[in-house]
Amino acid sequence: MIVVMKPGASDDQVQHVIDLVRDFGLKDHPIYGTDRTVIACIGDKRAVDKGAIETAPMVERIVPILAPYKMASTEVKQTRTAIEVGPDKFPIGGNSVGLIAGPCSVENREQFLRVADAVKATGAIGIRGGAYKPRTSPYSFQGLQEEGLEILAEAGRNTGLAIVTEVVSVETVDVVAAHADVLQIGARNMQHYPLLEAVGKAGKPILLKRGLSAQLDEFLLAAEYIINAGNPDVILCERGIRTYEKYVRNTLPLASVPELNERSHLPVVVDPSHGTGHAHLVPAMCRAAIAAGADALIIECHADPEHALSDGAQCLTPDALAGLTGSLKRIAQAIGRDM
Amino acid sequence: MIVVMKPGASDDQVQHVIDLVRDFGLKDHPIYGTDRTVIACIGDKRAVDKGAIETAPMVERIVPILAPYKMASTEVKQTRTAIEVGPDKFPIGGNSVGLIAGPCSVENREQFLRVADAVKATGAIGIRGGAYKPRTSPYSFQGLQEEGLEILAEAGRNTGLAIVTEVVSVETVDVVAAHADVLQIGARNMQHYPLLEAVGKAGKPILLKRGLSAQLDEFLLAAEYIINAGNPDVILCERGIRTYEKYVRNTLPLASVPELNERSHLPVVVDPSHGTGHAHLVPAMCRAAIAAGADALIIECHADPEHALSDGAQCLTPDALAGLTGSLKRIAQAIGRDM
Amino acid sequence: MIVVMKPGASDDQVQHVIDLVRDFGLKDHPIYGTDRTVIACIGDKRAVDKGAIETAPMVERIVPILAPYKMASTEVKQTRTAIEVGPDKFPIGGNSVGLIAGPCSVENREQFLRVADAVKATGAIGIRGGAYKPRTSPYSFQGLQEEGLEILAEAGRNTGLAIVTEVVSVETVDVVAAHADVLQIGARNMQHYPLLEAVGKAGKPILLKRGLSAQLDEFLLAAEYIINAGNPDVILCERGIRTYEKYVRNTLPLASVPELNERSHLPVVVDPSHGTGHAHLVPAMCRAAIAAGADALIIECHADPEHALSDGAQCLTPDALAGLTGSLKRIAQAIGRDM
Amino acid sequence: MIVVMKPGASDDQVQHVIDLVRDFGLKDHPIYGTDRTVIACIGDKRAVDKGAIETAPMVERIVPILAPYKMASTEVKQTRTAIEVGPDKFPIGGNSVGLIAGPCSVENREQFLRVADAVKATGAIGIRGGAYKPRTSPYSFQGLQEEGLEILAEAGRNTGLAIVTEVVSVETVDVVAAHADVLQIGARNMQHYPLLEAVGKAGKPILLKRGLSAQLDEFLLAAEYIINAGNPDVILCERGIRTYEKYVRNTLPLASVPELNERSHLPVVVDPSHGTGHAHLVPAMCRAAIAAGADALIIECHADPEHALSDGAQCLTPDALAGLTGSLKRIAQAIGRDM
Repeated sequence: MIVVMKPGASDDQVQHVIDLVRDFGLKDHPIYGTDRTVIACIGDKRAVDKGAIETAPMVERIVPILAPYKMASTEVKQTRTAIEVGPDKFPIGGNSVGLIAGPCSVENREQFLRVADAVKATGAIGIRGGAYKPRTSPYSFQGLQEEGLEILAEAGRNTGLAIVTEVVSVETVDVVAAHADVLQIGARNMQHYPLLEAVGKAGKPILLKRGLSAQLDEFLLAAEYIINAGNPDVILCERGIRTYEKYVRNTLPLASVPELNERSHLPVVVDPSHGTGHAHLVPAMCRAAIAAGADALIIECHADPEHALSDGAQCLTPDALAGLTGSLKRIAQAIGRDM
Repeated sequence: MIVVMKPGASDDQVQHVIDLVRDFGLKDHPIYGTDRTVIACIGDKRAVDKGAIETAPMVERIVPILAPYKMASTEVKQTRTAIEVGPDKFPIGGNSVGLIAGPCSVENREQFLRVADAVKATGAIGIRGGAYKPRTSPYSFQGLQEEGLEILAEAGRNTGLAIVTEVVSVETVDVVAAHADVLQIGARNMQHYPLLEAVGKAGKPILLKRGLSAQLDEFLLAAEYIINAGNPDVILCERGIRTYEKYVRNTLPLASVPELNERSHLPVVVDPSHGTGHAHLVPAMCRAAIAAGADALIIECHADPEHALSDGAQCLTPDALAGLTGSLKRIAQAIGRDM
Repeated sequence: MIVVMKPGASDDQVQHVIDLVRDFGLKDHPIYGTDRTVIACIGDKRAVDKGAIETAPMVERIVPILAPYKMASTEVKQTRTAIEVGPDKFPIGGNSVGLIAGPCSVENREQFLRVADAVKATGAIGIRGGAYKPRTSPYSFQGLQEEGLEILAEAGRNTGLAIVTEVVSVETVDVVAAHADVLQIGARNMQHYPLLEAVGKAGKPILLKRGLSAQLDEFLLAAEYIINAGNPDVILCERGIRTYEKYVRNTLPLASVPELNERSHLPVVVDPSHGTGHAHLVPAMCRAAIAAGADALIIECHADPEHALSDGAQCLTPDALAGLTGSLKRIAQAIGRDM
Repeated sequence: MIVVMKPGASDDQVQHVIDLVRDFGLKDHPIYGTDRTVIACIGDKRAVDKGAIETAPMVERIVPILAPYKMASTEVKQTRTAIEVGPDKFPIGGNSVGLIAGPCSVENREQFLRVADAVKATGAIGIRGGAYKPRTSPYSFQGLQEEGLEILAEAGRNTGLAIVTEVVSVETVDVVAAHADVLQIGARNMQHYPLLEAVGKAGKPILLKRGLSAQLDEFLLAAEYIINAGNPDVILCERGIRTYEKYVRNTLPLASVPELNERSHLPVVVDPSHGTGHAHLVPAMCRAAIAAGADALIIECHADPEHALSDGAQCLTPDALAGLTGSLKRIAQAIGRDM
């Protein structure tokens, strides 16, 4: 890190900061500029709270230099990670772009088995559906819970699709891991650290959604929690961020895809459904996500969006999804991938 | 809610939406304007996912009218709620403005008991300190946990201050409730619904921090989860939001104080430490928060910020805090309150 | 618009609002719901300041229904607009995707003529370059001004490329229009209304950049100013918005492309250079922009970015640009367009 | 500035950057850390586009150290600036807090002279009112222009209040300066550089509003443009920023007041009307602004907000304003100032 002193800092004040830097186990390297002094600090102490030095007299600010994550970083692992999911061991992060689709919630057995067949017919490699639903309002539909997990597992056996479903609490990690192929950590839980540690021991791949307004550093540190707890199979999912824009539920910042690919070896999936919130924007953003380099898409798809119990506004019908796959495949091929 | 049709919607398309509205148990009321038709929908169905109607043909958008929360709302309870905290039953939300201060983390027994005495001497009514720390990085100091709770309780017995500490997991709600006077839900956990439901049964007041980029509706719905689970004693805490501004850790939007007071009967506390992230901005924002109508302040205070294990950059020393209380008290009096 | 009354509004208070609505020349249509009354107001009065009604007693809020723009809207013109630019009359907004590239500033004659040849060789249809530069700091390079315009015109004659350059003041509209094929309104000037009106009389196509944090309504109203002043040839340019994200200069929200296409008949161009601020992110976002439906790209390209006088960090070299065009063309074809 | 190299940069790549640094006239100072090399660059070259170095091979990023503004900075002038306004030469930035109020627009002579008397009676030192109105829609009321200026001047002569009014174009700077005491630069024009330079020669104090989403550096650089053009009398005005919050027109980030006071010697005024957009939030934010250290307030005030031609929703009546001044004065006194 770099400590920037205010102009006019005295020799004693600079020396005080140098002493603090040494207290933190770092090597100091002061540089005396024309207007002000900066102190470069050498040593790999990612866990130190460097902000504390900011309160020393005449310190203007602290500039961190090292990325705070390690195992998620391309500095530690240069080769890209592909993570095999589902009975067919489809490698997310390989050359082929994967498609995961399904309704927001498992609403009932018949609904879900029917949509699973339709999703399978589009060429998807996985199906999504919530059994445990984190809902903003306590009065909203909260999911079928264990009954939903069993329906998910049945759909998986019927179709061979990888089952992707969210886990919302430490206590249910085991039961979800017993029924699903990929455990999703939702955006609201991206910094729910006990849950990150629990899924770090779950033995199944994790789809980690970016938090509602997470910085990329925070997103990769959340992945680091899971890896650090023992699970290297983390799939990053960009699902849009909160901005001032009103025509979308979230703003989908697709430049995060190449940036995450630069910083991390982990695969990156894009969710254009939550990333826009409106069905009429989803097709264009599916196409754009693949063009930006996404390793897979995860899309909300419901046979009757007008009557969906949750997230109806952003669902495609299976027919609309099927009509989309041709252009998605051609875009994948345009950049030397397959689908 | 109001369904806005696109211009050119046919009679059949309008009728289709009317049928959907009736499916949801609402009464329709179409209005034929010069450019377009809107359908007002009457009935109190807060739990319905009205977004689903947006996918019907020629629907432009859905405008919700009712607030999604009830028990937190001034529509349901017009009188303001004051919540008594600590051994002295100080009423947060009464006429007197409360001061809660203390370090980010309980670092060790001696440090904490010493700072507790200093906090007491400033006239504070509560002390804060983390035993369980949710940290962005898995490599950062994670708190003393149960040992920390015992130190907190000892400090409470010594000083008579109300103990405010964060709870981060469902499993530790009981042990935290056994040692603390007020259970804090951190910003990262504002939408951790199993935890909200668990503290709804804890039998102690809850200090609920606004999420990193929560809308006020979402904030009040999080309070609603706790109240709905059985605990009416929810204190709302504004702690700043994520914006594009770079000179602060968070932007502190103080207009939320009068707006929350308009929408809700619950008391509102402001955290100018997280709300700015830098000690030099804290005094002015303490003053502004009281002037804006805050019922209490919660401030980070550490005897040696330069060596704090977490959040050092935003800590005041006890001396700085003591030097601040005179102006805070005068501002409280300027608006007819006391401190 | 819809006026939403607070719960408990009296008959007199409702009648007072109805009277106000009539004062504004609108027809009232009150609806009495279970919890509250709303008053739908019928009539096309886009220019009325409806916010004023919000201050009437017991009014909770005003919900506008009509889009505030007209001539830019698909409600008024359903067929898409293609705008011919440059000596070759390339139609931006037609089936073929256009490429415009060039340096941030015209730095000197030799530099610019050389890069113009390189840009031409990539298959571009236009060249960009600033003669008048709006710079955040008064100490930064401010452009060659009229000398720059002459260099631009010479490059246009040499190559047949359409010349795109920014105009920053009312007084220079004529001289810029005399030398350039397309007049650019920069993001900082999107709401500089005298300038919008002046270019509305310039007789050349306008490339209107989205403001730093403009809503789409505000963006389309800026276009409306130009059209209203007499110039229907407005090309909308998405160039990224300001958000909390730190790894980019701006966040590029590509869902604006399909949304603008839904609301407006005007062509949409994307600027991935300002939209990210870093050269390593530009290629992926060029690809994504075309996949999202952009009618053209405008890209910063400099023969020696390390020594560029402005915006060096986001420039591609001509070689990098040439290496990119193959995949861009394939993506255009994947969605049934050409390049 | 500091150039941070990527891990694994070769000696040649480091040397290449050192050569570039020297090309820019800076002195290099490389530091070889455990994971990576950084190059500190010494020399005061604020005008250099340092971003260009970012495109050199294996450069990760550039960290600027010096503030980009000079004359607006406390580094250059340590004593606070007080700027005298109006016939009574009230010093904004002195110990006494000033109050400026008035309607958004001058609507007609009678309306304005009446409200001017009412504003005078509240103890205000200035009156605001727009003669030239920058409006988002071309169909909105655009102001009375020169006729409005004459009404403003008459109100000034009648009351002795300082006249504050906006100037929106270079051509009208002279006529506005002939009638007004303080020239306001609106938020949309904060980066309209020809206008900043023109008012730098106007010989009257300037009230510079913060742009809709301006960083503080950009805000102070806009002030620097005016000072650099010859006018040192710049009053900074915080008027709220664009964020994701929906209950306000803008989010008012009051921590900017102490931060601007730390960085700059210029006085700081707060506009709680635009800073919230809703009259019911204005009183609390007036109080908070003074408590945060504002040197003056500028408030929208209209005798009949329900019929205001612009910004009605955020106007106070003169009676509401008069009812507010008691608490504002007491808060000013609580922090050792007067009003």
